[in-house]
Amino acid sequence: MNARQLFNQIREKQSYLCIGLDTDYEKIPKILLDNEYPVFEFNKRIIKATADLAVAYKPNLAFYESLGAAGQMSLEMTVNYLRTHFPEIFIIADAKRGDIGNTSKMYASAFFSNFDFDAVTVAPYMGVDSVKPFLGHPDKWVILLALTSNPGAEDFQFQKLETTGEYLFEKVIRTSALWGNTDNMMYVVGATKAEWLRKIRKIIPDHFLLIPGVGAQGGSLEEVSEAGMNSQCGLLVNASRSIIYADITSNFDEAARSEAMTIQKEMAGYLAKAKLV
Amino acid sequence: MNARQLFNQIREKQSYLCIGLDTDYEKIPKILLDNEYPVFEFNKRIIKATADLAVAYKPNLAFYESLGAAGQMSLEMTVNYLRTHFPEIFIIADAKRGDIGNTSKMYASAFFSNFDFDAVTVAPYMGVDSVKPFLGHPDKWVILLALTSNPGAEDFQFQKLETTGEYLFEKVIRTSALWGNTDNMMYVVGATKAEWLRKIRKIIPDHFLLIPGVGAQGGSLEEVSEAGMNSQCGLLVNASRSIIYADITSNFDEAARSEAMTIQKEMAGYLAKAKLV
Repeated sequence: MNARQLFNQIREKQSYLCIGLDTDYEKIPKILLDNEYPVFEFNKRIIKATADLAVAYKPNLAFYESLGAAGQMSLEMTVNYLRTHFPEIFIIADAKRGDIGNTSKMYASAFFSNFDFDAVTVAPYMGVDSVKPFLGHPDKWVILLALTSNPGAEDFQFQKLETTGEYLFEKVIRTSALWGNTDNMMYVVGATKAEWLRKIRKIIPDHFLLIPGVGAQGGSLEEVSEAGMNSQCGLLVNASRSIIYADITSNFDEAARSEAMTIQKEMAGYLAKAKLV
Repeated sequence: MNARQLFNQIREKQSYLCIGLDTDYEKIPKILLDNEYPVFEFNKRIIKATADLAVAYKPNLAFYESLGAAGQMSLEMTVNYLRTHFPEIFIIADAKRGDIGNTSKMYASAFFSNFDFDAVTVAPYMGVDSVKPFLGHPDKWVILLALTSNPGAEDFQFQKLETTGEYLFEKVIRTSALWGNTDNMMYVVGATKAEWLRKIRKIIPDHFLLIPGVGAQGGSLEEVSEAGMNSQCGLLVNASRSIIYADITSNFDEAARSEAMTIQKEMAGYLAKAKLV
C-alpha cells in the first residue's frame, strides 16, 4: 500500500485510527478460553467490530511470541483474517527490530513475505544498514522509532548533539529521511510529546507519523492532530488497551466498537477542520 | 548462570568462544533436508562437534522467525538440546529487542521462562524502561548493544554529545551500567572497533563484553583479547559463519570443529598470557 492509498482509506472512513492488538492471554474474557486459539478469536471479534472505524491494526509481536508456537499461529491467523476480509487495512508488525544487513534481510522476509504485513517498526540504533534491507520491498514500509512515549525516552533520545545542537531523535529523523521516501518510511512519535510534533513536522513535513500514547498513556488526540496533520493527513494514531480492554465481559467487542467510534468521531471532526474530507 | 560460573567454564575449557547459530535454511548441507527439522539437525551436529570448545551459543532469532512455526520449533529443540546435554553452556537469544515496560516484560517471559535462555540482546534507544524488565530474573542477563560492528554504527553511535563531549555509545554504557550489575548486564562491542575497547574498559572494567565481528567480519582476536580482557576474562568472542559454514558437505561438523579448535587454541594462549589459566 502506498501513501495515497492509505490517505484514500482515511478519507473514506474519516478515521486515522490504528488499533493496537496487544492481546494478552491473561486479560481476554475467560469465555474465549475454550477456543483452540483464544487470542485469534479475541482479535477476530475486535476486528469484526471495529474494521469500519480503523485504517490500521498493529499486533505487538511480544504478546504473540511469549505464547510460543500457538502465539505464532494466532498471529498468522489474525493477519490472514485481516487480508481476507478487510483488504484495505494497513497491517503493522510492531516488532521494533534492528539488526545488520544479513539479519535485517531475514526479518524483512519474515514480515513481508511469510507474513503479509504492510509495515514493520524498526529501531534506529544500528544505523543505515539496519534499515535499508526493509526498504527494497514494493509497497512495504519501515516505521522508524524516533521519539517514543515512555519515560526512558529522556535517557538517549533527548541527548543534545555537539555538532548541530539538535537532539538525537532529530538527528535520527533528519539522517534516515534520506534513506527512503514518503512511500516507504514513517516515524514513531509519542503522543505524550505533542509539543515536539511541530518541530518534527518542520524536518519531515510530508511523512506519515505513527503516534502511540493516546488513551491509556494520556496523550491528547486534539493536540496531536493540530500539531501533526499535513495535507494527506499524515497521521496514524494508535490506541490499544483503551479499546481492546474497554470491557472484559463477553460484550468486549461491542465495548471496543463504542470506544473506537468515540475516537473516530473526534478524528472526523479534525479531518473536516483541516478540509481533508 | 552468574559471572563467576561463566568464568569457571572459561577456565575449564580454556575458551571464551561463543558460536553464533545463524542457521540459514538455504546454506545448510542438502543432505540434511530429509529431516523433519533440518535446522535443528544442523545445530545439533554443530553443537555436538564443538561444545567442548565453546562456552556459549547464540542463536540469531531472525533466522528462526523467518521460518515460521517450524523455525520456532527448531529453536526450542536447539535450546532444549543444549540444556539437556551441555548444562554448563551459556545460551544467548540474539534478539536485539527493545520496547517499553509492559512489552519488555512479555519478551523477558518469552526468553527466560518459555525458553530457558541465559541472556537476551537488547537495543538501548528507548532507555531505562526498555531494559529494567529483563533484569528482574535471577541469573539471567541483558546484553545491551553499545558499539556494533557494522558501518551504520557511525550514523548515531558515534554522535558526540554536547553536555559531556562523549560519544552516544559511551553515554549508553555509562548510564545503563547503573541500571544493573556485573552479574546481569553485558555489552555488545564490535571487534572491528578494537581501538575503542580500551576506552570502554575504563568505563566498565568489570562487565563481560560480547564481541561479534571476529572471523567473517574481519576483526582481530589478538587485538580484542589484549584490549578487552579483565581479571575474570570478561570476554565472550562470537564467531558465526566462519565456523558453522566452514564446509558445506556432509562433513560440515568436523570442519566446524576444526575451525572452532583453531580459535580455542589461540584463546588458550591469551588466557595463559593473562595468567587466567
